Parts: sequence; C-alpha cells; structure tokens
Amino acid sequence: MPEKMSTMHIRPLTSLLFERYQRDGFLLLPPDFLSSGVLQDAIALMPEILRSDDPSRVLERDNATVRSVYGLHRTYPQVHAITRHPLLLGAVEQLVGGGVYVHQSKINFKAPFSGDQWEWHQDFVYWLQNDGIPKPDLVNASIFLDEVTEFNGPLTFIPGSHRRGVLSGKLADGMPAGYEDAPAWVSTLTAEEKFNVDTSVIDDLARTNGLVSPKGPAGSVLLFHPNLLHASAPNLSPFRRTVLILVYNSVANTSGGVANPRPPFLADPDVRALRPLVPTATEGMPR
Amino acid sequence: MPEKMSTMHIRPLTSLLFERYQRDGFLLLPPDFLSSGVLQDAIALMPEILRSDDPSRVLERDNATVRSVYGLHRTYPQVHAITRHPLLLGAVEQLVGGGVYVHQSKINFKAPFSGDQWEWHQDFVYWLQNDGIPKPDLVNASIFLDEVTEFNGPLTFIPGSHRRGVLSGKLADGMPAGYEDAPAWVSTLTAEEKFNVDTSVIDDLARTNGLVSPKGPAGSVLLFHPNLLHASAPNLSPFRRTVLILVYNSVANTSGGVANPRPPFLADPDVRALRPLVPTATEGMPR
Repeated sequence: MPEKMSTMHIRPLTSLLFERYQRDGFLLLPPDFLSSGVLQDAIALMPEILRSDDPSRVLERDNATVRSVYGLHRTYPQVHAITRHPLLLGAVEQLVGGGVYVHQSKINFKAPFSGDQWEWHQDFVYWLQNDGIPKPDLVNASIFLDEVTEFNGPLTFIPGSHRRGVLSGKLADGMPAGYEDAPAWVSTLTAEEKFNVDTSVIDDLARTNGLVSPKGPAGSVLLFHPNLLHASAPNLSPFRRTVLILVYNSVANTSGGVANPRPPFLADPDVRALRPLVPTATEGMPR
Repeated sequence: MPEKMSTMHIRPLTSLLFERYQRDGFLLLPPDFLSSGVLQDAIALMPEILRSDDPSRVLERDNATVRSVYGLHRTYPQVHAITRHPLLLGAVEQLVGGGVYVHQSKINFKAPFSGDQWEWHQDFVYWLQNDGIPKPDLVNASIFLDEVTEFNGPLTFIPGSHRRGVLSGKLADGMPAGYEDAPAWVSTLTAEEKFNVDTSVIDDLARTNGLVSPKGPAGSVLLFHPNLLHASAPNLSPFRRTVLILVYNSVANTSGGVANPRPPFLADPDVRALRPLVPTATEGMPR
C-alpha cells in the first residue's frame, strides 16, 4: 500500500455514537465501517502469526494451543497499516480527544473447544501499574476476525462501569497454575487476573446496569474503554473466535517511566502520533 | 397436597411440538405450562437442599460451592409431587410412548462466578454403562428455577444430534482433578466428562446443524433427549442459574442389572409407573 501522510482530521462518529460511548463505555461498529480489505489482510496473516515461535506468543494452560500473540503492529506492516485506517484512527482520536499511538496490540485466538475464559477485570490498571500510563485515555479497538456469537466466548461488558474509575482492588500475587516457569510478565496476560475486582462490586453493578455481549459478523469493530469491566467465557464451541485488539493511547498520556519496563511488544516505546493512511489517485482508498 | 390417583392419560403436546422434539431432540415450554405453585415449591426447598450435608451432594472443584444435589424426588415429597404434575408427566409419557418413572433427579446450581462448565457429552451412555438402562427411552425435564440467559451458563445443544445415536467413544479413566478422595461414582458426575465425543464429530455436527441455547424465565421447562449432544459454559455472571432436572425413563426400559449398582439417589430402584396428581374438589389443580 503506497503511504502518503495527511494531517487531515476526520470525525467519523456522529454525536449520537460519541455520546453512547461516553455513557456505555463501548461501541459496536458494523463491518462496513472498515474498508473491505482490512479483514482479508488480517486473516491472511494469521497462519504466519500462529506459526511464529516468539516470546510475544502466549499459550493456553494446555501449553499447546496459542492463546495470544502480542506486538503485531510492530512486527507486521499490514497490521501497522490497519492501525492507521483513516476511519478507525479518526474515531479513536475523537474519543480520546487528540492524537494517538498504539501502546499494545494482540490477537486473541480463542481456539475451538479450548480457548479459555478471562475473568472479570478492567484493562487500565495493568497499563497503569505495569507500564506507568497515567490516565485511562486509551481506547481498545477489537476487530472481529471471525463471527462472534453467543457460543464462542464473546466479551461480556457491564455497560457504564467505566464511569466508576479503577475498581480493581486486591492484588493476586504469584504465577498462575500452568505458567510457573514462564517469564514474570506472563502473569499479567493470562486467564487468572492479577488485579481482581470484588465480586460484590461486580454484582451491584450488573444488577444496576445489566450485562451485554456485543456480537457480530467478521469485520465488526468493537471500541471499548479501558476501565470497562469485562469478562469472557471459554470457547466450548467448534468455531474459532479470533479478534485483533489494538490498544490506542493518547500521545498526551505517555508513560512517566517504570522501574522494570515490560518488553516493547507489550508496551510500545514508540509514542509518535499515528497519521491516517489516505487515498491515493492510483490506488483509491487504503484496502 | 391431597393425593388422588387417576389413570387418566392426557396428551398435552400438539403434534407440531411432538414432531419438533423428534426432529430437534429438545422442546422449550413456557412458564405457564406448569402450574404456578411448582416453581415456588421448588424454590422454597432450595435453602434446605443446599444445607443438607449428604453423600448425594457434589461440590465444585473449589470444594466449597455446591454443584449438584441428587435424588431429590426420593427425599422431598414436594419434588416427588412435581414429577407427577399432570401436564409434565403427560408430555413425557407422550414422548416416551407409555408409562414412566424417575430414574434420577438433581438440582444443578451453577453458582454465580463459580458454576463450572460441562464439556460436550451425551447423557444416555452414562445410564447405559453405569446403570444398565438398555435403550435411550428417557426424557430429561429441566425446570428453570432461575431465569436462564446467555450470561449464566445455559445448556448449548446441537439440534438433531440425538438422531445419530451413541457417539461417545473414548473412555477417560480415573478421577478428575480435585476429586481424588471422593467415592468412585463421583467421577460419573463432574465437569470432566468420562465418556468423550470426538471433537471432529462435534465439529461436523455443529457445522451442519448449528448450535442453540434455549433461554427463558424461571418456570420454563426444557425437555431434551438423552442422546442429544450438549455442553454448557461456566457461570461468569453474578446471577445464579439453578435448574431442577428430572430424568424420566420408560417403565418398559428398566435396568437389566449391573455388577456394581450406583446408590439409589443416582439410579432409583423404584421403577413403578408414576400416576398424575389430579385436581380435587377442595383444592383445585395441583399447585
């Protein structure tokens, strides 16, 4: 894809959608929001990503099935191009109120029959505690690479819970079962959450605000706030549930530094503002 | 409740519903199918059932949360009365084609945050192998004691899979993790299934027939065939998902005997045909 920089700023979200994100902490955009080539590009990369025997790859408890691969926007130019998709980048800039970079990216595979659950948690506390990101001025963009249904372990949100700030209290120390020999940072990435939220808090919030699991066809984009409480069931179904997650952070919200920084594939040190890829006369809109 | 016997046989299922059960292997009946008191009776018993420290009670892997309690129709007259509800009994007799008794009954609690998953399995193979029940002429009647939603671990079926007969091949020996000190029969009741179905078979069937998770308000009745392939996700939600399951067997399909019979709370030796409770002049319809 030919790269041409632009300083043009677009605002793809209507005020209705913008306000819904502020209220609920998430927004599900249909597959036609992204250009059609984005999904094909990401799906075409998956076999290579699955094969890569790299420290950025985390296995399930079974020590065989790939759970997640991190740092993809640094490794794959195709993923870097997706992070600069003009509508996606424009929407995130709208929500954060300015320029952004990608602090972290990953694919979560949720393999058929074995993709494990993720317990209730908020994301921001990890970036705060591990990476020194000061404020929750980040946006998760989860691009569905498979159809997400009620059966293959969709994310479940408590709408509006992001407005309660950091609810994560207890710190569960030590390495989770099955990962005893892994590097220390793995404990921040696995199914047993290190920063727990009291079940009484989850109970209260769910009774007041309800639960919701956004679902949709491959290509859908789910934007959600880093303080939104969420969990996901294991994938008991025979159908894969792969998502590409891009964690955008405001360039005004970079880390103040931590004693033991995580590897670049978990906390990108390149904090320059992304610029949208723009249409060219010969190629049209970016794929 | 005054008991008056009847030999009256009613056929509550229309031919449409009857044929749908034959085709899909399950049928979800709305809460108004049962008389309104049934739900209250069962719910009122739950604290007592949860307290009972009895061999028929099975705990979750955490050795603290109650997973299931068995043999309730033998222990509680109120549950025995439910097994004789005229519409429920009539529907089951229709599906089995004659008189029935309850081979097994249980409550599955699926406690908030901790109710564990059940892997893909068929029920009949357990009754065949452990109890010597010769044919799959049984019907599971699952009475929802809580609302069942997409969030609290509903059963997931592969519709029509019952028509493939016994698909369960491999026998996984030994006690599941966390239950090493329990009596041997516990291995037939826990989350790690003893009789596995090949994932390739599940995959093929699910791609052809799809998946479905019947959901509904408390009081709904879910009838399903003992060879229907099913699984259920853990309950990650703060909402309980309790169901009362009555396993009816045809009186023409009793056990031929096995070397080591399971306890009566798992395999009822009383195989006399149930008779419906009928309305009395003073009390009206059974509650």
